Amino acid sequence: MKTRGAHLPIRAANRLTVGVVGATGYTGQELIRILSRHPRLRIALVTSNRLAGKKLSDCIPSLSGLCDLTLSSPDEARRGRVDVLFLGLGHGEAVEFLKGYPYLSSTRVIDLSADFRFRDPDLYRKTYGGTVPGSLNGKFVYGLTEVFRKAIRRARYVANPGCYVTSVLLPLYPILSRKAVSVSGPIIVTSASGVSGAGVTPKAETQFCEVDEDYSAYKPLREHRHLPEMEEVLSPFGVRILFTPHLLPIRNGILSDIVFRISNPSADVVDRIYRAWNRFYRGSVFVHPVRHLVHVSEVRGTNDARFTARYDPLTRTVLILSAIDNLIKGASGQAVQNLNVMMGWPEHLGWANRS
Amino acid sequence: MKTRGAHLPIRAANRLTVGVVGATGYTGQELIRILSRHPRLRIALVTSNRLAGKKLSDCIPSLSGLCDLTLSSPDEARRGRVDVLFLGLGHGEAVEFLKGYPYLSSTRVIDLSADFRFRDPDLYRKTYGGTVPGSLNGKFVYGLTEVFRKAIRRARYVANPGCYVTSVLLPLYPILSRKAVSVSGPIIVTSASGVSGAGVTPKAETQFCEVDEDYSAYKPLREHRHLPEMEEVLSPFGVRILFTPHLLPIRNGILSDIVFRISNPSADVVDRIYRAWNRFYRGSVFVHPVRHLVHVSEVRGTNDARFTARYDPLTRTVLILSAIDNLIKGASGQAVQNLNVMMGWPEHLGWANRS
Amino acid sequence: MKTRGAHLPIRAANRLTVGVVGATGYTGQELIRILSRHPRLRIALVTSNRLAGKKLSDCIPSLSGLCDLTLSSPDEARRGRVDVLFLGLGHGEAVEFLKGYPYLSSTRVIDLSADFRFRDPDLYRKTYGGTVPGSLNGKFVYGLTEVFRKAIRRARYVANPGCYVTSVLLPLYPILSRKAVSVSGPIIVTSASGVSGAGVTPKAETQFCEVDEDYSAYKPLREHRHLPEMEEVLSPFGVRILFTPHLLPIRNGILSDIVFRISNPSADVVDRIYRAWNRFYRGSVFVHPVRHLVHVSEVRGTNDARFTARYDPLTRTVLILSAIDNLIKGASGQAVQNLNVMMGWPEHLGWANRS
Amino acid sequence: MKTRGAHLPIRAANRLTVGVVGATGYTGQELIRILSRHPRLRIALVTSNRLAGKKLSDCIPSLSGLCDLTLSSPDEARRGRVDVLFLGLGHGEAVEFLKGYPYLSSTRVIDLSADFRFRDPDLYRKTYGGTVPGSLNGKFVYGLTEVFRKAIRRARYVANPGCYVTSVLLPLYPILSRKAVSVSGPIIVTSASGVSGAGVTPKAETQFCEVDEDYSAYKPLREHRHLPEMEEVLSPFGVRILFTPHLLPIRNGILSDIVFRISNPSADVVDRIYRAWNRFYRGSVFVHPVRHLVHVSEVRGTNDARFTARYDPLTRTVLILSAIDNLIKGASGQAVQNLNVMMGWPEHLGWANRS
Repeated sequence: MKTRGAHLPIRAANRLTVGVVGATGYTGQELIRILSRHPRLRIALVTSNRLAGKKLSDCIPSLSGLCDLTLSSPDEARRGRVDVLFLGLGHGEAVEFLKGYPYLSSTRVIDLSADFRFRDPDLYRKTYGGTVPGSLNGKFVYGLTEVFRKAIRRARYVANPGCYVTSVLLPLYPILSRKAVSVSGPIIVTSASGVSGAGVTPKAETQFCEVDEDYSAYKPLREHRHLPEMEEVLSPFGVRILFTPHLLPIRNGILSDIVFRISNPSADVVDRIYRAWNRFYRGSVFVHPVRHLVHVSEVRGTNDARFTARYDPLTRTVLILSAIDNLIKGASGQAVQNLNVMMGWPEHLGWANRS
Repeated sequence: MKTRGAHLPIRAANRLTVGVVGATGYTGQELIRILSRHPRLRIALVTSNRLAGKKLSDCIPSLSGLCDLTLSSPDEARRGRVDVLFLGLGHGEAVEFLKGYPYLSSTRVIDLSADFRFRDPDLYRKTYGGTVPGSLNGKFVYGLTEVFRKAIRRARYVANPGCYVTSVLLPLYPILSRKAVSVSGPIIVTSASGVSGAGVTPKAETQFCEVDEDYSAYKPLREHRHLPEMEEVLSPFGVRILFTPHLLPIRNGILSDIVFRISNPSADVVDRIYRAWNRFYRGSVFVHPVRHLVHVSEVRGTNDARFTARYDPLTRTVLILSAIDNLIKGASGQAVQNLNVMMGWPEHLGWANRS
Repeated sequence: MKTRGAHLPIRAANRLTVGVVGATGYTGQELIRILSRHPRLRIALVTSNRLAGKKLSDCIPSLSGLCDLTLSSPDEARRGRVDVLFLGLGHGEAVEFLKGYPYLSSTRVIDLSADFRFRDPDLYRKTYGGTVPGSLNGKFVYGLTEVFRKAIRRARYVANPGCYVTSVLLPLYPILSRKAVSVSGPIIVTSASGVSGAGVTPKAETQFCEVDEDYSAYKPLREHRHLPEMEEVLSPFGVRILFTPHLLPIRNGILSDIVFRISNPSADVVDRIYRAWNRFYRGSVFVHPVRHLVHVSEVRGTNDARFTARYDPLTRTVLILSAIDNLIKGASGQAVQNLNVMMGWPEHLGWANRS
Repeated sequence: MKTRGAHLPIRAANRLTVGVVGATGYTGQELIRILSRHPRLRIALVTSNRLAGKKLSDCIPSLSGLCDLTLSSPDEARRGRVDVLFLGLGHGEAVEFLKGYPYLSSTRVIDLSADFRFRDPDLYRKTYGGTVPGSLNGKFVYGLTEVFRKAIRRARYVANPGCYVTSVLLPLYPILSRKAVSVSGPIIVTSASGVSGAGVTPKAETQFCEVDEDYSAYKPLREHRHLPEMEEVLSPFGVRILFTPHLLPIRNGILSDIVFRISNPSADVVDRIYRAWNRFYRGSVFVHPVRHLVHVSEVRGTNDARFTARYDPLTRTVLILSAIDNLIKGASGQAVQNLNVMMGWPEHLGWANRS
């Protein structure tokens, strides 16, 4: 999977230029952190609606030394070309930004919003209330890297998946596509996420005093907008999902409990699941089926996804526990990984020299 | 439900004397807090294996002013009679303590361990590995107050339920006993608890640095010892439970997500559930079906249980969210409530003058 | 200090009516909690600018059962008389509210803002930028209960002190007024507070993701508005204070480290300090000099102030550690305590039956 | 300062072999994280008393993929040679380990305990109660990198400084050595640290339920063992320190408030301090004087030290705020930085390609 010599540092002049539109949000900040370590990229543009004109590292002191550029407004950003554009905007805003973008044909775009995730424009409209021009929509490949790697390799435009969606689809997809087991009834997903998933804009419900020492569910069963996204990707397999997210008093991290019953019980259910996983993810450096009960803390700060399976023969029920860092594998890390795939670089470029 | 004049303060001399065996554990500390405000009780005895000989409030400064007694060893405690005994010991230890207790016939006992919770001694042995003398076991009434109130009224000895168990049974019992709906398949319980549920003894996995910013499951599906306790109480209704507890980076509080499918769908599933709840808990001051999605924070520090129901007609699935404070309604609060019931006092004696 | 029979419950009809203006802020919420347990008061009015028209307990579910009144706007509130008014407004707003209040002459007012805390109107104007009508200002007594108890007894209007101020003045005042030691040079105060001190209005810097796992100073040395308040109260003693507050990733609680050098060293410096404290606070149920190093957790949820002194003879330096709950002794608890003093009731009325 | 070509990856065979003795403690884990990314090192040995025989990444799942070696006992470790040895042991244990170590003459050692930090053996004995063989002691250079860089360059054995000590000395040393100002009276240091500083061994006072939502001082004024270490390094300048550490409910990070009065007031006190800092730390990539009030969060996860100065002319008092990550710049990061200096490599080798 490695490109020869990929680790060789290259002169700044030879690096691709990168723009981060929406650099001061939590995904934007995390993007800056990853991109600033990437040996083949140079951050050339950072934007912020709110803070344009200020130095990024004055606004976000933890980025000083990593990126000391001055923030442009998104409007200014449209005037300058970069080789790669990461869009860390809200839904609806990404569509708007690209409509007026003059360099679309010569720029690679990885969008972290929901705007280009849906193949079915009606589903997008029903879910997010907006419209995506057909001309744009058809061009985006859904960026769940390990599942759609082949298509991403040929893509110029990638729609990065939702954070919850990534935590749920990575363990489920191989089981369903390889028919490791036959699911009977709905798949019940109970997820818990750190607060950074709610974004950087101050809200009453994400104030420290409201979240600290608390735990609660929100948008249960079929209310959350990540549910249609999950179901669309899994539509070939005819499964129904119920999804209840919860807010954890932590900054980063998602744990998803995925529970379903099976109709073809056998003594080796767990083995068949791990076998499907191990085959599907052979050579994928970031996805790790493990045997212990995964903790959120073991993937925090990494681009890893880790998951575990358990089975109760009495009720023919499977439990999968799946952990990612919502800002990295669930957003910015997967975005850079997708760029690596698009460019034919090793997927882990920008991360430590992992074996 | 009120006893006339119950609020009148009574002279200390007329108050019942209370002993708390195991006063320095988290449930013991919480018991002291509640008992010190109770107008008809006087704490006369506090014990600790580890800290005997020291003043309780020197060991636990937050109790100073509430209880300044010196800690006895459990052995010394056996030599003095009190009117009421709360046992905040580990399983196995409660049985041992009572075996040698000379005043059993003239003392009311509320045990917070698991020792007397099981009607079936085999189930207790299989679950906890110990044996309870039949002479003792038969005498204890299971102290899920609102469900077994009548039996508790006549009881001298009460076995206080587990914390997770309380959060799950309070919403489930009325639905099943009143046949509000017909459950099909296993009931999937996904609970999350604060760390105080793990007790006061230092452990590697409950160190601050291990729990902070983390979230994880433990003893999933059928491994946790609260599962057999739940299933025994629900055995008349022939349901199976799968129970996966999680550790939250908070001190107190439990939220249980309870999910099951039903075989008799109708337009008014949610209404039928609330109707069953409202009838069952009419006049119960601590149990509150609510319409919003309950937060752990709204029951913290209280003896309340609050729960909510939602229904997905597409998959015929019910979701119940149930919140309690694990140390209060899940332990010490329910224990004092049980004493109030045993004595014929208003159930909320010891709490604020609630209407 | 007790009024005979103070504990006897009195019929609701005989209770004083209380209004809480600004009931949905953190101090307002805490006031409701304390007032709802008070045996001689009945909450008759709760207001909120933002949430007028809604039921208080729908907005703040943790108050349900304690106060289920509907929120009025402050304007409506001016039209109805209550016996006692607690003002939980921002500075400037309290002055405005009282300007148009028709029942001022027959109502007791405890104001929790900064508006009436200063004797010197120039100092108020310089510090907060507003003006207080002389007619109002002269009528308010500064409500540091244990220090100004005599004046509070005769007061109809009380200005409740700032939270940091309370934590600093309670240990310092007796030392300075009784000349336990002679302070040389500035008094260096390093305080740390929970986030609730910043109020309920959403701000970027009090979002969970900004505070969690962080710690920082703000408004150091002479920048914070609580400094002039401290120095005015201590002006008889001619001391200078440097005050550097910090933001802690906790909800409630303040710890203040108070450091100063002395010019009259002797072997018994610490004893002289404790002697001054013990005499000054004899009979004060809420103020407790202790010998151990106080923790924030031991005063949380209480109206207690606890402090400790240490001395380094080598450098002739005294360290005092002082802990309070910023929302209770630092705000709402002291406010109710002040009302108790104004009414000639036992100071601890509304709290548990402490000995 | 850079060695030419330092960034070029080198073949594993040419990397220096490294041993981490005490790999499962919090400093050990952090060392593994940094070393596994270092382009010129290969971890060849990891030890643990408690967990010898197990795979490191089975014990610490967050290290999986970074280091999958099996843990040796310290005894086994003595039998194999490595090029570099990091000792993450308790005080007293490092001396013991090295006494029997046969490869001392051919191995570089960086010790993270207190054993070799003191030049004065009496001071070490008084402070830590142990004895260090003179033969060993004289060989160690004190590893406060930016201050003693020249000596470290020629050293084979380095004693890594204490975490609090690092946060205090980095800002103080240039001010004192360059006589930017004249300090009058004691230097008052009020520090706050995350819980990881207390080590991995379970203790009652570092249990989640004891630390969460709490804040407290410990070992105040002259009781903490980092005080003599600070005063010995600063002994050329004849200053006295008072040091009061506090425990923060966070995992990593230290903020030190450093307060002192000066005897030579002038209008440009702050400028003189920044000038001294900027000259002293010119070319030091990890030490950053900044103008804003530093937050712990902005240095977490980095090897940076950041500090700020403020001055109050009225009382002639300077306040310095200094932030580091206690496990990185305060321990493992500075240890690897010291190795880089010893080897003549760029100091930041092992960190991201910072400019």
